[in-house]
Amino acid sequence: MVEVSKHYPKSKLPIIYERSNVNERAALRSSPLYEQLADELAAQISTGVFGPGDKLPSVRQVSQNKGVSVTTVLQAYQLLEDRGSIEARPQSGYYVRFIPLPSLTVPEPGFFTPPDDLEEAQIDDLVMMVMRDSTNLELIQLGAAQPDPSLLPTDRMNRILSRLARLNDIHQNMRGLPEGCIELRTQVAKRAFLLGCSIAPEDLLITSGCTEAVSLALRAVCQPGDLVAIESPTYFGILQAIETQGLRPLEIPTHQRDGINLEALDFAIEHYPVKAVVVMSNYHNPLGSCMPEENKRALVDLLAPREIPLIEDDIHGELSFSDQRPLVAKSFDQNGLVLLCSSFSKDISPSYRVGWIAPGRFFTAVQKHKMATTLSTPILLQHVIAEFLDNGGYDHHLRKIRRAYAQKVTQTVHGVLRSFPKGTQISSPEGGYLLWVQLPRQVDSLALYREALQVGITLAPGYIFSSTPKFHNYIRLNTAYMSFAAEKALDILGGIVQKMAKA
Amino acid sequence: MVEVSKHYPKSKLPIIYERSNVNERAALRSSPLYEQLADELAAQISTGVFGPGDKLPSVRQVSQNKGVSVTTVLQAYQLLEDRGSIEARPQSGYYVRFIPLPSLTVPEPGFFTPPDDLEEAQIDDLVMMVMRDSTNLELIQLGAAQPDPSLLPTDRMNRILSRLARLNDIHQNMRGLPEGCIELRTQVAKRAFLLGCSIAPEDLLITSGCTEAVSLALRAVCQPGDLVAIESPTYFGILQAIETQGLRPLEIPTHQRDGINLEALDFAIEHYPVKAVVVMSNYHNPLGSCMPEENKRALVDLLAPREIPLIEDDIHGELSFSDQRPLVAKSFDQNGLVLLCSSFSKDISPSYRVGWIAPGRFFTAVQKHKMATTLSTPILLQHVIAEFLDNGGYDHHLRKIRRAYAQKVTQTVHGVLRSFPKGTQISSPEGGYLLWVQLPRQVDSLALYREALQVGITLAPGYIFSSTPKFHNYIRLNTAYMSFAAEKALDILGGIVQKMAKA
Repeated sequence: MVEVSKHYPKSKLPIIYERSNVNERAALRSSPLYEQLADELAAQISTGVFGPGDKLPSVRQVSQNKGVSVTTVLQAYQLLEDRGSIEARPQSGYYVRFIPLPSLTVPEPGFFTPPDDLEEAQIDDLVMMVMRDSTNLELIQLGAAQPDPSLLPTDRMNRILSRLARLNDIHQNMRGLPEGCIELRTQVAKRAFLLGCSIAPEDLLITSGCTEAVSLALRAVCQPGDLVAIESPTYFGILQAIETQGLRPLEIPTHQRDGINLEALDFAIEHYPVKAVVVMSNYHNPLGSCMPEENKRALVDLLAPREIPLIEDDIHGELSFSDQRPLVAKSFDQNGLVLLCSSFSKDISPSYRVGWIAPGRFFTAVQKHKMATTLSTPILLQHVIAEFLDNGGYDHHLRKIRRAYAQKVTQTVHGVLRSFPKGTQISSPEGGYLLWVQLPRQVDSLALYREALQVGITLAPGYIFSSTPKFHNYIRLNTAYMSFAAEKALDILGGIVQKMAKA
Repeated sequence: MVEVSKHYPKSKLPIIYERSNVNERAALRSSPLYEQLADELAAQISTGVFGPGDKLPSVRQVSQNKGVSVTTVLQAYQLLEDRGSIEARPQSGYYVRFIPLPSLTVPEPGFFTPPDDLEEAQIDDLVMMVMRDSTNLELIQLGAAQPDPSLLPTDRMNRILSRLARLNDIHQNMRGLPEGCIELRTQVAKRAFLLGCSIAPEDLLITSGCTEAVSLALRAVCQPGDLVAIESPTYFGILQAIETQGLRPLEIPTHQRDGINLEALDFAIEHYPVKAVVVMSNYHNPLGSCMPEENKRALVDLLAPREIPLIEDDIHGELSFSDQRPLVAKSFDQNGLVLLCSSFSKDISPSYRVGWIAPGRFFTAVQKHKMATTLSTPILLQHVIAEFLDNGGYDHHLRKIRRAYAQKVTQTVHGVLRSFPKGTQISSPEGGYLLWVQLPRQVDSLALYREALQVGITLAPGYIFSSTPKFHNYIRLNTAYMSFAAEKALDILGGIVQKMAKA
């Protein structure tokens, strides 16, 4: 889709220096060439490209690259020196001066200014805002679905990383293949055996996170215009993948305990040309639902005779609150129709961006799209995760974080029950770290998001989990950061909801 | 596009264990449950999922996850022990035995077996084969466009990586934003100033390699079915991006010295609804061409009044053989219509998969597609590159590798002139490390590729650089690995071509 901002800001237009006919053109302009060059440099200094203390490019470099005379560059630098923004250091060059300029403290764009009314395109802005909130460490993090940093095996990963980095293996410096390294694919195949799937390493592709896995799966099985059945509510990333690929979502009612309603799905595929189905079978985002085994089997059996591919996102599957993690729908797949997607972003590292897909009979198509999208996934990070999985610490780590997240979820449920008004309903998942909260009808989640930001709390408003506004009075809470401070934040949040419910 | 292999091999079907009604179903099957379980495990052992010395899942784990009794698992393990493929170690568990099985040395699929005749889909196979060759270190590497590993700053990068990994910065463990970290964007903006572009950090997005940058650029400005003007020949990755997005390529004649023919392009956009143009303006892959500045300006001026976006791939721009690198077409862009794409895969690290895009007025659209495709790029690797760019070693490094590649290209040109038959023509680029060789008409590049593989040499046949077979008698040579051994390989290759030219 072509998106063109019609009002391309004048200030962003690059100032162009002509390398030929410089003199004739310059004569036609209002300000002399050296002044234009000085202005251009000043702009780069004010936006922080060249920050205080930075050395500016040498006079010779600028002269060569901009196609102007050395004298012109010297005049420009002299002008900036006169204006006080740079200084010459003998035998060294020109440097940006340290000046505390109030204009340098640019307010973060859109941080506290969500739009007042929501149109379709603004859902994207809202998603970006919730994501951006997650990098603001001054906010209480009840928003983006980030894991607790203290529950990631960062020290161990760093030790493995340092060691592998010193190995200087030639393969680790080269690009790697689209399907990823055999070591990690073998580890994933090993774990998949315990999920009920007999997958060989060559049936797997390593991806840049679960986002790429789901995105490639959709590309492999759909064409623009196709209808895709999804859960409602659903993770906004799935909605975005569908929309950006020119597909159309068909939202199927989904229960907070059992997951997607199979009768509704059956009806939908009877009456609409559904080309693919996407589910988060285990510990759904945002619902927390976990499909019972018989539903997983029934789902596979429902789609198989119609040859409809099932894209199964299992990103939270390992975060079961009990010792035993649930199976995946793929374990019931006898036709290669299930494309199972997951990643290590929730339990090992969100920043590594390493995920995987077992695409069944669509392997070749997924591989082709992977090549044309990102070519391959950073091989060093693949090796680090493979080694972590291999050396046996993963199971111990999982036991630890499962207990911790179970406690955080319980703590948050109690906090909401204590502080939120009557009429509030809350999910009770058996895994993951997300809670789905239904507020009294008159409470608008966007208004709540806006008010909460004012007191330093971020959360995920219900609008971003559907292409319709039907979840306007719902919010998703991330419990991963739950702590004493966050528990107090729940009280404050409850107070705001109480007030809004009465208004 | 839905790609379904109709002959989904029976052997790949997962063996399903029913968690409910296990006994009834098992009774209907020919072999007892424990034997089925043993066979499934044996299959996972033979494909290497569980390799020699690996510990198998505990009896309890298998029992729980497969929904069978402990006795059944014990019987299955006993059977595998009897068959000699696993062994019990007291107080420890069951392990896969070390047995040198000849059947374990699976031949690499398709390594030495390119197809005999080429249909459209097989071009993809051919590309995959050339890529796969690059991981076979026993081949002389004249194929994939990989840089010389010894010309990458691997030691310095590893030192920075180890140090940053120990910092334990919370931001480095978290996901990061779609546009990438501000530190790297600032460094890229700084360097862009010397390319003639005044770009602010907030005009940039960090991508997963240049592949993602070009792919996102196409997604941002085109819709399926749109016509995209490209150079002919062109890098096969651009052809794949166009094809997988459902776009149509329009190949414009391109000269090995000056790049895309502007008269031909002008004619094309007069007569066809061209929605975007893609060029590799500097040190083109495979041609090695570098557009003169006046052509870059003329190209921008040609497209601006028609509001046609220009996607400019500058991945080889820094690899100039002279001290001064060429400008980019974007430096002449006054309308935000040029989407400039590049990466650090050729000069710093192919395996980091870190690239960038300056998408002009299409920033929002590119950001949205980035979110829906890979969400973000691994933040630690971004920081490592930012630090390498910042500490001043980059320019020194560039000077070193520019000299080295200039020598390798010269050496290869001489080798080809010496060994190849009369009628051979060869490009003479002023940057990069690729050569484009026109062989006598009767020499088929695919046949040559096949024969060269037999003697341990890989190269890139001309077929993969166009959607037509018009470059059937061309090859691309990667000179990056040029050495004494590789020079001898040129003599051998020349001998094969001589023979084929006479046949």
